[in-house]
Amino acid sequence: MKQGLSRRECLFMLAKIAGSSAAIMHAAEALGIPQPVSSFNNNKLKKVSGKRPHVLILGAGISALVSAYELSRAGYSCEVLEASSRIGGRNMTLRHGDVIDEIGNRQICDFDDEPNLYFNAGPARLPAHHHGILHYCRELGVQLQVFNNYNRNCYTQDDNVFDGKPIRIGEYEADIQGFTNELLAKSLRHTKHLDAPFDESDFERMLQYVKTQGALDNEFKYQGSTLSGWQSGGVFAPGKMKTPRGFADLLKSNFWAGGMIFTQWADQEPAMMTPVGGMDSIVKHFLPHVQDKIKLNAQVQRIQNQDHGVDVQYMQHGQLKTTRGDYCLNCIPSEILSGIDHNFPDDYSHMMAKMHRGKLIKFGLQAKERFWEKDDIYNGISWTNQDITQIWYPEHGIFAKKGVLLGGYSWVPEIVDRFAAMSSSQRIESVLAQGEKIHPQYRQYIEKGVSICWHRMNHQLGCGTLWDDEHYAAGFELLQKPTGRHYLMGDQMALLEGWQEGAVQSAWYAMQDIEKRQSHKSGVSA
Amino acid sequence: MKQGLSRRECLFMLAKIAGSSAAIMHAAEALGIPQPVSSFNNNKLKKVSGKRPHVLILGAGISALVSAYELSRAGYSCEVLEASSRIGGRNMTLRHGDVIDEIGNRQICDFDDEPNLYFNAGPARLPAHHHGILHYCRELGVQLQVFNNYNRNCYTQDDNVFDGKPIRIGEYEADIQGFTNELLAKSLRHTKHLDAPFDESDFERMLQYVKTQGALDNEFKYQGSTLSGWQSGGVFAPGKMKTPRGFADLLKSNFWAGGMIFTQWADQEPAMMTPVGGMDSIVKHFLPHVQDKIKLNAQVQRIQNQDHGVDVQYMQHGQLKTTRGDYCLNCIPSEILSGIDHNFPDDYSHMMAKMHRGKLIKFGLQAKERFWEKDDIYNGISWTNQDITQIWYPEHGIFAKKGVLLGGYSWVPEIVDRFAAMSSSQRIESVLAQGEKIHPQYRQYIEKGVSICWHRMNHQLGCGTLWDDEHYAAGFELLQKPTGRHYLMGDQMALLEGWQEGAVQSAWYAMQDIEKRQSHKSGVSA
Repeated sequence: MKQGLSRRECLFMLAKIAGSSAAIMHAAEALGIPQPVSSFNNNKLKKVSGKRPHVLILGAGISALVSAYELSRAGYSCEVLEASSRIGGRNMTLRHGDVIDEIGNRQICDFDDEPNLYFNAGPARLPAHHHGILHYCRELGVQLQVFNNYNRNCYTQDDNVFDGKPIRIGEYEADIQGFTNELLAKSLRHTKHLDAPFDESDFERMLQYVKTQGALDNEFKYQGSTLSGWQSGGVFAPGKMKTPRGFADLLKSNFWAGGMIFTQWADQEPAMMTPVGGMDSIVKHFLPHVQDKIKLNAQVQRIQNQDHGVDVQYMQHGQLKTTRGDYCLNCIPSEILSGIDHNFPDDYSHMMAKMHRGKLIKFGLQAKERFWEKDDIYNGISWTNQDITQIWYPEHGIFAKKGVLLGGYSWVPEIVDRFAAMSSSQRIESVLAQGEKIHPQYRQYIEKGVSICWHRMNHQLGCGTLWDDEHYAAGFELLQKPTGRHYLMGDQMALLEGWQEGAVQSAWYAMQDIEKRQSHKSGVSA
Repeated sequence: MKQGLSRRECLFMLAKIAGSSAAIMHAAEALGIPQPVSSFNNNKLKKVSGKRPHVLILGAGISALVSAYELSRAGYSCEVLEASSRIGGRNMTLRHGDVIDEIGNRQICDFDDEPNLYFNAGPARLPAHHHGILHYCRELGVQLQVFNNYNRNCYTQDDNVFDGKPIRIGEYEADIQGFTNELLAKSLRHTKHLDAPFDESDFERMLQYVKTQGALDNEFKYQGSTLSGWQSGGVFAPGKMKTPRGFADLLKSNFWAGGMIFTQWADQEPAMMTPVGGMDSIVKHFLPHVQDKIKLNAQVQRIQNQDHGVDVQYMQHGQLKTTRGDYCLNCIPSEILSGIDHNFPDDYSHMMAKMHRGKLIKFGLQAKERFWEKDDIYNGISWTNQDITQIWYPEHGIFAKKGVLLGGYSWVPEIVDRFAAMSSSQRIESVLAQGEKIHPQYRQYIEKGVSICWHRMNHQLGCGTLWDDEHYAAGFELLQKPTGRHYLMGDQMALLEGWQEGAVQSAWYAMQDIEKRQSHKSGVSA
């Protein structure tokens, strides 16, 4: 028997949506995503006294920017070595003329040169409990707007049911809620208590609860629900209800296993935020504080822990250079770091090589008209069982002439591999062919598109480390601890991988350890 | 047995939240709100030929602005008589220095003079399917931003349960979903099919559905859900689940009967919009097109249908004036209109006097710090069984120093009456005393507040006409048709009362009828 998605597939799918696989895997049967507890809010590092320690920071993603910002403020001297020619790591907002440096598939973003035509190719949303990254938005003056992660006017589409036709999420949810509550009402009324954990008066309440949630009639039947909006009428004449879909068909759709519970997890809450003007507004607000510490096009070749510091060799503009830090904070992705010459202990190197980063592809499509707005959609996410998985509608630029959609967002490795094997234009053609099952008018409006395949992106080669039970138990703590004066950081060093919050928290973890060593040192030497 | 809310109370409560009582009453047991179908999108009125008809428009709310805008563009001459000194009707955004013209309780809004410190005292949100009002936002260039109507980080608080302590909406929903799905799983597995409308393979799917929605364990038990976020951990160590609340307690809360299904209705969808800078941005964008047609402080005294026009007497600056229109569009609220001298037919007058408008009070509170943001809330609505009913957190001004909350929003007549009987300062004191059960730190942060009690507001005396079955059947169509050359309009003449969409649609209904008469006339006279 083939269900829409097996439990395992579902867990996997959920795990991959926004990282947090470890958390989910640990929670085993409970689906969800963790609430990080940030310990550093409103904290600052203590000012260092005496000789300023020099800290090498490898990579210029969010964890690096946070480190350079905080350490500099506390009096450390910082040197950031970034292999590429841009700052921000996977925090990447694409606009007219931007280079997408995918190995073997270099693209230039050809969106029109308009302020509202941008695409967050990496992180795109900020949950309210991600205190670390929000702390920096507040402190640095990054302007935020709200983002609707849950929109019942968006569609769910499944090739295996309803003739592959899209239906509104609100209609799907109203119907399946109606039928399941009808079933529960029937069972409650026929078999009475079912050893239910409540008494007679609670039982009456329970029946009313079921009736209300299912919009059941007085016979506790589901006859359709105005929760899915009217078929017609409602303004000058009473509304007519829509005809419910068949229960079995609703169950055959895979929507209930994924999209329907998606926004119930903490990290995927309905009420999210995003920076005005693009996610890289965060990077831009760090820059004035750290730009002078960053060396671009500086590819690290060798990392050597020494007794009192860390030596790093890097290649810049064809020249081999050497630098030494009292400490080294390193957010180079594990796939790349494993290939760099180093003298880390064997167990450490062994675990590092085993870190398992994910695959993920996103598509940005420029539309010459915002056709989704005419279809009552202004933000939010549609879901499909096709490879594109999701379509996102922009929260910004409402009523502008044109807009940029997220035309697909896939994280299941086999799916990403299918897209990865295509040329840029084949990818866009495939995305259009899938998207038009949800929006039949798609090809009439989509003008151009880009794809960002993170495991093939230069200097990245992956996205979101998957800390499953086995890997977590075997080596997370080992890798989190410093080896000598060298620290691994980045979202790869948090169970929140894939989220900028993981990057921020990992940076703070490392900096707090450095601070401890410094105060111990000054204590000793004082 | 006292439930949180009876079915009737619930229906009533729901009906009053945003109008649409008639629709709900008609739908009887189905809870929900209509999807209007707008027929005029992208339509324009035909240009009138020959002599320009003169149209009197009584009142300057949204329906009046729409009428003056459209009729002027089509070559009609328009004259708008507004009794008060402001334009916009219940579309009212309060800022520093604004007068709240409540009869017997005049207030001056003393919010600080800052751009982000405003409060939408009337309509505050725009659902995506309200095509009429959104059409004007698009056409006039009103900038919109999204609004999160559903935020699982907000609170539900009920004096009768959990010692009156607030709990996060996400935690409430995860727990009650868990327990009810455990119950359904038990019933499905013990009694098998229950005449369920599906076969064996569907049955397996159904079980998986129930397990997924309830986050049940392998024994189909609810042991807590990560859907409510972690108790601790989740960043560097596996997350620990929160302990579920008791099922009976969850059922005793009234949240399931109101707030929990609130955002499932079409008009209260999770993904809403609101104009940047305040709802009165819509009014401001109409103004350049219609301002020269509006006479302020012009109180209508007498309306007389004549054979070929409508005579209107009004008082302006102490002077009685007379004007005549070929047509008259009238959005004066029914309570006020009934007291104006007119020569409408008896059945019409009789029905008009029976129109039943509602009561509604809103509270705006200025906070000296945005304490809700530190509590992981950036937008959305908290719910309580106390009189204040709701607290809204602003979608604008994130991270600004101060902010304006909606401190209460009540629509049940007895509740509104309780507030109405208080002085301004007593009201705010009462709102603070209630609000601090949800936010214990309330008094530390709230600096000042205003109340807007719509049924006591000058020139309003009510809010949202309630078209129940009886009234609708007895007279909606009668009042919707013109009497002579006089048309009633405004949100009072749509089942969508309380929403600006009702005002827009009613204006279009009247204008289309005028157009028909004009083309008939020119056909005859040509």
